[in-house]
Amino acid sequence: MKRRILYPGTPPVILGCATVGGRREKEGPFGALFDLTDKTDRFRKKTWETAEAEMQRLALCKALEKTGKSAMEIDALFAGDLINQCAASVFGLVNVPAPFFGIFGACSTLTEGLTLASLALENPGVSLTAVVTSSHNCSAERQFRSPLEYGGQRPPTSQWTVTGAGAYLLSGRAEEGCCARVTALLPGIAVDSGLTDSSNMGAAMAPAAADTFLSYFAESGERPEDYDLIVTGDLGAEGSSLFLEFLAENGCPNVKNHEDCGALIYDRKRADVHSGGSGCGCAGTMLANRYLPLLLRGEKRRILFAATGALMNAASVQQGLSIPGIAHLVRLESPENGKEKI
Amino acid sequence: MKRRILYPGTPPVILGCATVGGRREKEGPFGALFDLTDKTDRFRKKTWETAEAEMQRLALCKALEKTGKSAMEIDALFAGDLINQCAASVFGLVNVPAPFFGIFGACSTLTEGLTLASLALENPGVSLTAVVTSSHNCSAERQFRSPLEYGGQRPPTSQWTVTGAGAYLLSGRAEEGCCARVTALLPGIAVDSGLTDSSNMGAAMAPAAADTFLSYFAESGERPEDYDLIVTGDLGAEGSSLFLEFLAENGCPNVKNHEDCGALIYDRKRADVHSGGSGCGCAGTMLANRYLPLLLRGEKRRILFAATGALMNAASVQQGLSIPGIAHLVRLESPENGKEKI
Repeated sequence: MKRRILYPGTPPVILGCATVGGRREKEGPFGALFDLTDKTDRFRKKTWETAEAEMQRLALCKALEKTGKSAMEIDALFAGDLINQCAASVFGLVNVPAPFFGIFGACSTLTEGLTLASLALENPGVSLTAVVTSSHNCSAERQFRSPLEYGGQRPPTSQWTVTGAGAYLLSGRAEEGCCARVTALLPGIAVDSGLTDSSNMGAAMAPAAADTFLSYFAESGERPEDYDLIVTGDLGAEGSSLFLEFLAENGCPNVKNHEDCGALIYDRKRADVHSGGSGCGCAGTMLANRYLPLLLRGEKRRILFAATGALMNAASVQQGLSIPGIAHLVRLESPENGKEKI
Repeated sequence: MKRRILYPGTPPVILGCATVGGRREKEGPFGALFDLTDKTDRFRKKTWETAEAEMQRLALCKALEKTGKSAMEIDALFAGDLINQCAASVFGLVNVPAPFFGIFGACSTLTEGLTLASLALENPGVSLTAVVTSSHNCSAERQFRSPLEYGGQRPPTSQWTVTGAGAYLLSGRAEEGCCARVTALLPGIAVDSGLTDSSNMGAAMAPAAADTFLSYFAESGERPEDYDLIVTGDLGAEGSSLFLEFLAENGCPNVKNHEDCGALIYDRKRADVHSGGSGCGCAGTMLANRYLPLLLRGEKRRILFAATGALMNAASVQQGLSIPGIAHLVRLESPENGKEKI
């Protein structure tokens, strides 16, 4: 199977970012790093769906403010979420005067967007792109499972959909103060392992994550230890252990530098989140709250980051279809990390 | 507002395409041009949703067969539909061994995909891309409105969701027998006119279509009459007349060369489709069945083609939100149409 790592002609830079989160996210270990939070999770809106849309709007506005850019400078805006027909993105960003591309990669949406935003920058007419992604625990529960009021029990393998939104601005030209460079891309292939348990998304996504990372190492000739960190989106505790097993079975044993956004975003001893966090807002906020600061401060120099998605809808689960997974990988390097690479 | 027409460095070519349709589509004026049809609309599947997924698979397989390409040669596959979480694309294409990008632009998905597939080809690692899109009347009715058995009445402004799928293969290098060149792109901006009538999608989309075409003419200095055809996706009869009014009010009166896929796909005198066809499968099949053959045979040389989408979901309509529209434009030129352009 052909897997070609894509190297942008000139590595785009992530100029800046912003994150918005809910109560439980604020209480997590990275809670202080959100730009905006609302302990009611409602963001002054009447429905969970419009609250999620508002989080996308707030995240993008804050990212623009932090970078000194205007929405009218955005040449291509990539946005997606878990809500049917990408409605959080549509209604959150409808008044942004920028070309709008709805994308869907379930919880892999962040890196699907970063990939497309990086590729678009290769056109000389495109100089600034944006990626926005979100999830909201209450809109996701209502749509995919049961209304919150139902109070259904959740098995230990289940994950907690993050109430969060992240916005990222990318430029084709290095600028002062940028967070990171995007130096390589490996878009994911959907992997169907035949799993049907919608309470164990980590297991459904782990094979896709392993496929993407193993393909990356095979194509590049590199190894996990060549990186400061290899990061997955929201495999959770369950999916992460499967992911490491798959790597070990395929020539990458004893990986010590793996982190998973879903396993880290909450204090799992205190918060009742079972296997960890999930949703587009998980990787969507953790990249900005944890990993870009590490690169910006030079504490880490090279990170492989792959958000992971479980591809399904409520009807497909009810009709007994399996849950394919997907993982899109981006290679991120600290902004000052020499120009000899690529 | 910044609207920048994007010119691909080397115009990508549409190498080939294929279409799949249902009974009513086969009975329409372009029915004989479908590569595959099934008069049961079921495509040997047990559910409407899996039937739609099968249509995507069949369309891509047929397009690959017609162009002599293999799925493993595809560097980036862009696919979308109207089903929640792009499930027709996911389950139709999950076994295609190619990097998968889910996209959502409602009925504008075809040209959103052609835009991204063209931009991706600017990366030297990408040489073949694919776009697949679909809609199915029965899966759309069940999801957005009522199950077919309910037999709800439909107002005259309503449209009929096309049961159809189209697949397109694009290459960065001109090859013998290609259908058309993609010589310019103008991605759409979401336009919210405050309309809330989900039985009149044409009116919701017409302002976005007008915005995209008027921006194109303003930026390029060209006029509608500089083209052989200006084509919209699925405004239907109602939306088309509004679209032409908007053009007339903004300096483009008496446009004689406009066609709308939705207004043409059915014989509206015979078929009970009210304002015309709609859905991702409308523009998704009409580009291949009507417009690419015109370009290939040299009967038309330059076409502006914009699929149009209404951005909403069932919950947003129930919650009283408006229905924004969007239209992504691609400029298509006949394959032999001199290299002096661009």
